[in-house]
Amino acid sequence: MKKTTIAVDMDDVLADAYGRIIEIYESENGLKIDKEAIKGKKYTEAFTGEQLAIVKQIPHTENFFHDLNVIENSQEIMAELYNRHDVYIVSAAMEYPFSLKAKKDWLEQHFPFIHWKKIIFCGDKSIIGTDYLIDDHVFNLETFKGIPLIFSCLHNLDETKFERMHNWLDVESKFL
Amino acid sequence: MKKTTIAVDMDDVLADAYGRIIEIYESENGLKIDKEAIKGKKYTEAFTGEQLAIVKQIPHTENFFHDLNVIENSQEIMAELYNRHDVYIVSAAMEYPFSLKAKKDWLEQHFPFIHWKKIIFCGDKSIIGTDYLIDDHVFNLETFKGIPLIFSCLHNLDETKFERMHNWLDVESKFL
Repeated sequence: MKKTTIAVDMDDVLADAYGRIIEIYESENGLKIDKEAIKGKKYTEAFTGEQLAIVKQIPHTENFFHDLNVIENSQEIMAELYNRHDVYIVSAAMEYPFSLKAKKDWLEQHFPFIHWKKIIFCGDKSIIGTDYLIDDHVFNLETFKGIPLIFSCLHNLDETKFERMHNWLDVESKFL
Repeated sequence: MKKTTIAVDMDDVLADAYGRIIEIYESENGLKIDKEAIKGKKYTEAFTGEQLAIVKQIPHTENFFHDLNVIENSQEIMAELYNRHDVYIVSAAMEYPFSLKAKKDWLEQHFPFIHWKKIIFCGDKSIIGTDYLIDDHVFNLETFKGIPLIFSCLHNLDETKFERMHNWLDVESKFL
Protein backbone atom coordinates (compact mmCIF):
# COMPACT_ATOMS: atom_id res chain seq x y z
CA MET A 1 0.00 0.00 0.00
CA LYS A 2 1.27 3.47 -0.89
CA LYS A 3 2.28 5.38 2.22
CA THR A 4 0.75 8.73 3.06
CA THR A 5 3.21 11.52 2.20
CA ILE A 6 3.46 14.30 4.77
CA ALA A 7 5.49 17.52 4.49
CA VAL A 8 6.40 19.03 7.85
CA ASP A 9 7.52 22.65 8.14
CA MET A 10 10.54 23.39 10.33
CA ASP A 11 10.29 26.86 11.92
CA ASP A 12 7.54 27.00 14.55
CA VAL A 13 6.56 23.38 13.93
CA LEU A 14 9.80 21.61 14.90
CA ALA A 15 11.98 24.56 15.96
CA ASP A 16 10.76 27.34 18.20
CA ALA A 17 11.73 30.30 16.02
CA TYR A 18 9.04 32.78 17.06
CA GLY A 19 9.76 32.15 20.73
CA ARG A 20 13.44 32.89 20.17
CA ILE A 21 12.68 36.05 18.17
CA ILE A 22 10.65 37.40 21.09
CA GLU A 23 13.35 36.36 23.56
CA ILE A 24 16.09 38.15 21.57
CA TYR A 25 13.95 41.23 21.04
CA GLU A 26 13.19 41.47 24.74
CA SER A 27 16.75 40.96 25.89
CA GLU A 28 18.26 43.37 23.35
CA ASN A 29 15.72 46.12 23.94
CA GLY A 30 15.09 45.68 27.65
CA LEU A 31 11.36 45.40 26.93
CA LYS A 32 8.72 42.81 27.71
CA ILE A 33 6.42 41.83 24.84
CA ASP A 34 2.83 41.29 25.93
CA LYS A 35 2.10 37.87 24.40
CA GLU A 36 -1.62 38.15 25.09
CA ALA A 37 -1.72 41.36 23.05
CA ILE A 38 -0.06 39.82 19.97
CA LYS A 39 -2.02 36.55 20.05
CA GLY A 40 -3.66 35.90 16.69
CA LYS A 41 -1.87 38.81 15.04
CA LYS A 42 0.43 38.45 12.06
CA TYR A 43 4.01 39.71 12.44
CA THR A 44 3.09 42.84 10.52
CA GLU A 45 0.15 43.57 12.84
CA ALA A 46 1.85 42.53 16.07
CA PHE A 47 4.84 44.75 15.35
CA THR A 48 4.90 48.06 13.52
CA GLY A 49 7.39 50.68 12.40
CA GLU A 50 10.86 50.43 13.88
CA GLN A 51 9.83 47.48 16.07
CA LEU A 52 8.84 45.46 12.98
CA ALA A 53 12.14 46.28 11.26
CA ILE A 54 14.08 45.01 14.30
CA VAL A 55 12.02 41.83 14.60
CA LYS A 56 12.31 41.05 10.89
CA GLN A 57 16.09 41.43 11.07
CA ILE A 58 16.55 38.91 13.91
CA PRO A 59 16.47 35.69 11.81
CA HIS A 60 19.05 37.26 9.49
CA THR A 61 21.69 37.20 12.21
CA GLU A 62 24.42 34.60 11.78
CA ASN A 63 23.68 32.24 14.66
CA PHE A 64 19.92 32.52 14.90
CA PHE A 65 19.10 29.05 13.58
CA HIS A 66 21.88 27.22 15.42
CA ASP A 67 20.36 26.74 18.82
CA LEU A 68 16.60 27.02 18.54
CA ASN A 69 14.61 25.02 21.07
CA VAL A 70 12.69 21.98 19.93
CA ILE A 71 8.89 22.30 19.93
CA GLU A 72 7.29 20.21 22.68
CA ASN A 73 6.75 16.50 21.88
CA SER A 74 7.92 16.92 18.28
CA GLN A 75 10.92 14.58 18.56
CA GLU A 76 9.11 11.49 19.82
CA ILE A 77 6.05 11.94 17.64
CA MET A 78 8.08 12.79 14.51
CA ALA A 79 10.06 9.58 15.07
CA GLU A 80 6.85 7.53 15.06
CA LEU A 81 5.38 9.49 12.15
CA TYR A 82 8.61 8.98 10.18
CA ASN A 83 8.50 5.23 10.70
CA ARG A 84 4.87 4.87 9.79
CA HIS A 85 4.47 7.32 6.87
CA ASP A 86 6.53 8.94 4.09
CA VAL A 87 7.61 12.13 5.86
CA TYR A 88 9.56 15.12 4.50
CA ILE A 89 10.91 18.23 6.19
CA VAL A 90 10.06 21.23 4.03
CA SER A 91 11.58 24.51 5.15
CA ALA A 92 11.55 27.87 3.32
CA ALA A 93 15.22 28.18 4.23
CA MET A 94 16.22 29.79 0.94
CA GLU A 95 15.24 33.20 2.33
CA TYR A 96 18.20 32.91 4.71
CA PRO A 97 21.04 31.45 2.60
CA PHE A 98 23.60 31.60 5.41
CA SER A 99 21.23 29.47 7.51
CA LEU A 100 21.18 26.50 5.14
CA LYS A 101 24.04 24.65 6.80
CA ALA A 102 22.89 25.63 10.32
CA LYS A 103 19.41 24.28 9.62
CA LYS A 104 20.78 21.02 8.24
CA ASP A 105 23.02 20.68 11.32
CA TRP A 106 20.13 21.47 13.67
CA LEU A 107 18.04 18.71 12.10
CA GLU A 108 20.92 16.26 12.37
CA GLN A 109 21.31 17.10 16.05
CA HIS A 110 17.65 16.98 17.09
CA PHE A 111 16.12 14.65 14.48
CA PRO A 112 19.05 12.37 13.61
CA PHE A 113 16.75 9.69 12.18
CA ILE A 114 15.74 11.89 9.24
CA HIS A 115 17.62 10.89 6.07
CA TRP A 116 19.04 13.69 3.89
CA LYS A 117 16.80 12.49 1.05
CA LYS A 118 13.80 13.57 3.12
CA ILE A 119 14.90 17.19 3.66
CA ILE A 120 13.83 20.03 1.38
CA PHE A 121 14.99 23.62 1.65
CA CYS A 122 12.89 25.71 -0.66
CA GLY A 123 11.21 29.05 -1.14
CA ASP A 124 7.67 28.84 -2.43
CA LYS A 125 6.02 25.59 -1.21
CA SER A 126 3.36 25.49 -3.93
CA ILE A 127 5.15 22.76 -5.90
CA ILE A 128 5.48 20.37 -2.98
CA GLY A 129 3.41 17.40 -4.09
CA THR A 130 2.75 15.59 -0.80
CA ASP A 131 -0.66 14.49 0.49
CA TYR A 132 -0.41 16.76 3.57
CA LEU A 133 1.46 19.89 4.64
CA ILE A 134 1.77 20.79 8.34
CA ASP A 135 2.76 24.47 8.48
CA ASP A 136 2.17 27.56 10.61
CA HIS A 137 2.00 30.01 7.69
CA VAL A 138 -1.27 30.74 5.92
CA PHE A 139 0.53 31.76 2.69
CA ASN A 140 2.15 28.30 2.48
CA LEU A 141 -1.09 26.47 3.24
CA GLU A 142 -3.14 28.52 0.78
CA THR A 143 -1.07 27.60 -2.30
CA PHE A 144 -0.55 23.96 -1.29
CA LYS A 145 -2.37 21.47 -3.53
CA GLY A 146 -2.79 18.67 -0.98
CA ILE A 147 -4.53 18.79 2.42
CA PRO A 148 -3.27 21.73 4.50
CA LEU A 149 -3.02 21.46 8.30
CA ILE A 150 -2.28 24.62 10.28
CA PHE A 151 0.10 24.19 13.20
CA SER A 152 -0.67 26.61 16.02
CA CYS A 153 1.66 29.53 16.55
CA LEU A 154 0.96 32.88 18.26
CA HIS A 155 0.54 34.63 14.91
CA ASN A 156 -2.11 32.27 13.42
CA LEU A 157 -4.49 31.53 16.31
CA ASP A 158 -7.45 33.38 14.75
CA GLU A 159 -7.20 31.59 11.41
CA THR A 160 -10.20 29.34 10.72
CA LYS A 161 -9.70 28.21 7.11
CA PHE A 162 -7.66 25.07 7.87
CA GLU A 163 -7.86 22.01 10.08
CA ARG A 164 -5.83 22.90 13.15
CA MET A 165 -3.06 20.98 14.88
CA HIS A 166 -2.84 22.74 18.26
CA ASN A 167 0.31 20.83 19.11
CA TRP A 168 2.16 17.58 18.36
CA LEU A 169 -0.36 15.52 20.31
CA ASP A 170 -2.95 16.53 17.70
CA VAL A 171 -0.56 15.30 14.98
CA GLU A 172 -0.24 12.02 16.86
CA SER A 173 -4.03 11.63 17.08
CA LYS A 174 -4.46 12.37 13.39
CA PHE A 175 -1.77 10.11 11.91
CA LEU A 176 -0.78 7.51 14.47
CA MET B 1 -4.03 30.88 -17.99
CA LYS B 2 -2.06 28.72 -15.59
CA LYS B 3 1.63 28.70 -16.49
CA THR B 4 3.47 25.46 -17.17
CA THR B 5 5.62 24.53 -14.15
CA ILE B 6 9.10 23.26 -14.97
CA ALA B 7 11.69 21.92 -12.52
CA VAL B 8 15.26 22.21 -13.78
CA ASP B 9 18.06 20.19 -12.21
CA MET B 10 21.33 21.98 -11.45
CA ASP B 11 24.31 19.63 -11.76
CA ASP B 12 24.97 18.63 -15.37
CA VAL B 13 22.00 20.64 -16.61
CA LEU B 14 23.07 24.16 -15.56
CA ALA B 15 26.47 23.48 -13.98
CA ASP B 16 29.08 21.25 -15.58
CA ALA B 17 29.76 18.97 -12.61
CA TYR B 18 30.71 15.79 -14.47
CA GLY B 19 33.15 17.69 -16.67
CA ARG B 20 34.84 19.11 -13.56
CA ILE B 21 35.00 15.72 -11.86
CA ILE B 22 36.86 14.30 -14.85
CA GLU B 23 39.14 17.35 -15.00
CA ILE B 24 40.05 17.04 -11.29
CA TYR B 25 40.53 13.28 -11.54
CA GLU B 26 42.84 13.68 -14.51
CA SER B 27 44.89 16.46 -13.00
CA GLU B 28 45.28 14.79 -9.58
CA ASN B 29 46.12 11.38 -10.96
CA GLY B 30 48.10 12.36 -14.04
CA LEU B 31 45.80 10.18 -16.15
CA LYS B 32 43.65 10.85 -19.17
CA ILE B 33 40.09 9.45 -19.05
CA ASP B 34 38.92 8.09 -22.40
CA LYS B 35 35.58 9.85 -22.78
CA GLU B 36 34.57 7.66 -25.70
CA ALA B 37 35.02 4.59 -23.49
CA ILE B 38 32.74 5.90 -20.69
CA LYS B 39 30.02 7.27 -22.98
CA GLY B 40 26.62 5.89 -21.98
CA LYS B 41 28.01 4.27 -18.84
CA LYS B 42 26.79 5.05 -15.36
CA TYR B 43 29.39 6.29 -12.85
CA THR B 44 29.49 2.84 -11.31
CA GLU B 45 30.18 1.20 -14.67
CA ALA B 46 32.52 3.88 -16.00
CA PHE B 47 34.66 3.72 -12.87
CA THR B 48 35.37 0.74 -10.67
CA GLY B 49 37.24 -0.13 -7.51
CA GLU B 50 39.65 2.50 -6.24
CA GLN B 51 38.98 4.74 -9.22
CA LEU B 52 35.26 4.85 -8.34
CA ALA B 53 36.03 5.68 -4.71
CA ILE B 54 38.21 8.62 -5.81
CA VAL B 55 35.66 9.93 -8.31
CA LYS B 56 32.81 9.69 -5.78
CA GLN B 57 34.83 11.65 -3.25
CA ILE B 58 35.51 14.63 -5.55
CA PRO B 59 32.16 16.47 -5.06
CA HIS B 60 32.65 16.14 -1.29
CA THR B 61 35.64 18.47 -1.39
CA GLU B 62 35.05 21.92 0.05
CA ASN B 63 35.31 24.08 -3.07
CA PHE B 64 33.94 21.75 -5.69
CA PHE B 65 30.65 23.56 -6.32
CA HIS B 66 32.07 27.08 -6.18
CA ASP B 67 33.40 27.51 -9.66
CA LEU B 68 31.72 25.00 -11.95
CA ASN B 69 31.39 26.06 -15.57
CA VAL B 70 27.98 26.94 -16.93
CA ILE B 71 26.47 24.47 -19.42
CA GLU B 72 26.42 25.88 -22.95
CA ASN B 73 23.46 28.19 -23.78
CA SER B 74 21.78 27.57 -20.42
CA GLN B 75 21.94 31.19 -19.21
CA GLU B 76 20.18 32.84 -22.16
CA ILE B 77 17.60 30.10 -22.62
CA MET B 78 16.86 29.79 -18.88
CA ALA B 79 16.26 33.56 -18.79
CA GLU B 80 13.62 33.24 -21.52
CA LEU B 81 12.15 30.10 -20.01
CA TYR B 82 11.95 31.83 -16.61
CA ASN B 83 10.05 34.77 -18.09
CA ARG B 84 7.61 32.66 -20.02
CA HIS B 85 6.89 29.77 -17.62
CA ASP B 86 6.87 28.95 -13.90
CA VAL B 87 10.42 27.64 -13.50
CA TYR B 88 12.11 26.12 -10.41
CA ILE B 89 15.66 25.00 -9.80
CA VAL B 90 15.57 21.62 -8.08
CA SER B 91 18.92 20.32 -6.91
CA ALA B 92 19.65 17.25 -4.77
CA ALA B 93 22.07 19.41 -2.81
CA MET B 94 21.24 17.85 0.56
CA GLU B 95 23.73 15.06 -0.13
CA TYR B 96 26.50 17.66 0.19
CA PRO B 97 25.46 19.86 3.15
CA PHE B 98 28.59 22.02 3.02
CA SER B 99 27.72 22.82 -0.61
CA LEU B 100 24.36 24.42 0.15
CA LYS B 101 25.68 27.97 0.44
CA ALA B 102 28.11 27.50 -2.46
CA LYS B 103 25.31 26.31 -4.72
CA LYS B 104 23.07 29.22 -3.75
CA ASP B 105 25.97 31.63 -4.43
CA TRP B 106 26.74 29.98 -7.76
CA LEU B 107 23.12 30.43 -8.87
CA GLU B 108 23.17 34.06 -7.77
CA GLN B 109 26.32 34.66 -9.78
CA HIS B 110 25.35 32.89 -13.00
CA PHE B 111 21.53 33.06 -12.89
CA PRO B 112 20.90 36.28 -10.95
CA PHE B 113 17.34 36.59 -12.26
CA ILE B 114 16.18 33.50 -10.33
CA HIS B 115 14.29 34.50 -7.17
CA TRP B 116 15.07 32.57 -3.97
CA LYS B 117 11.45 31.42 -3.89
CA LYS B 118 12.14 29.40 -7.03
CA ILE B 119 15.12 27.44 -5.66
CA ILE B 120 14.75 24.02 -4.05
CA PHE B 121 17.55 22.04 -2.45
CA CYS B 122 16.28 18.57 -1.73
CA GLY B 123 17.14 14.91 -1.62
CA ASP B 124 14.59 12.65 -3.19
CA LYS B 125 12.79 14.50 -6.06
CA SER B 126 9.69 12.27 -6.03
CA ILE B 127 7.55 14.85 -4.22
CA ILE B 128 8.29 17.69 -6.65
CA GLY B 129 4.86 18.44 -8.11
CA THR B 130 5.76 20.33 -11.31
CA ASP B 131 4.47 19.53 -14.79
CA TYR B 132 7.99 18.79 -16.10
CA LEU B 133 11.38 17.78 -14.71
CA ILE B 134 14.56 18.29 -16.76
CA ASP B 135 17.24 16.11 -15.17
CA ASP B 136 20.23 13.98 -16.18
CA HIS B 137 19.61 11.21 -13.63
CA VAL B 138 17.39 8.25 -14.44
CA PHE B 139 16.59 7.64 -10.75
CA ASN B 140 15.14 11.17 -10.44
CA LEU B 141 13.15 10.89 -13.66
CA GLU B 142 11.77 7.44 -12.81
CA THR B 143 10.05 8.50 -9.58
CA PHE B 144 8.84 11.87 -10.90
CA LYS B 145 5.06 12.09 -11.30
CA GLY B 146 4.95 14.68 -14.11
CA ILE B 147 6.57 14.51 -17.55
CA PRO B 148 10.26 13.58 -17.30
CA LEU B 149 12.79 14.96 -19.79
CA ILE B 150 16.30 13.54 -19.79
CA PHE B 151 19.11 16.05 -20.27
CA SER B 152 22.07 14.52 -22.04
CA CYS B 153 25.18 13.81 -20.02
CA LEU B 154 27.99 11.34 -20.75
CA HIS B 155 26.55 8.83 -18.27
CA ASN B 156 22.99 8.66 -19.70
CA LEU B 157 23.45 8.62 -23.48
CA ASP B 158 22.17 5.05 -23.93
CA GLU B 159 18.97 5.65 -21.96
CA THR B 160 15.86 5.42 -24.15
CA LYS B 161 12.95 5.57 -21.67
CA PHE B 162 12.54 9.37 -21.66
CA GLU B 163 12.17 12.20 -24.14
CA ARG B 164 15.67 13.56 -24.61
CA MET B 165 16.97 17.11 -24.45
CA HIS B 166 20.37 16.83 -26.13
CA ASN B 167 21.24 20.37 -25.07
CA TRP B 168 19.64 23.72 -24.19
CA LEU B 169 18.65 24.36 -27.81
CA ASP B 170 16.32 21.37 -27.51
CA VAL B 171 14.81 22.94 -24.37
CA GLU B 172 14.32 26.16 -26.33
CA SER B 173 12.56 24.30 -29.16
CA LYS B 174 10.29 22.47 -26.74
CA PHE B 175 9.15 25.34 -24.54
CA LEU B 176 9.79 28.65 -26.33
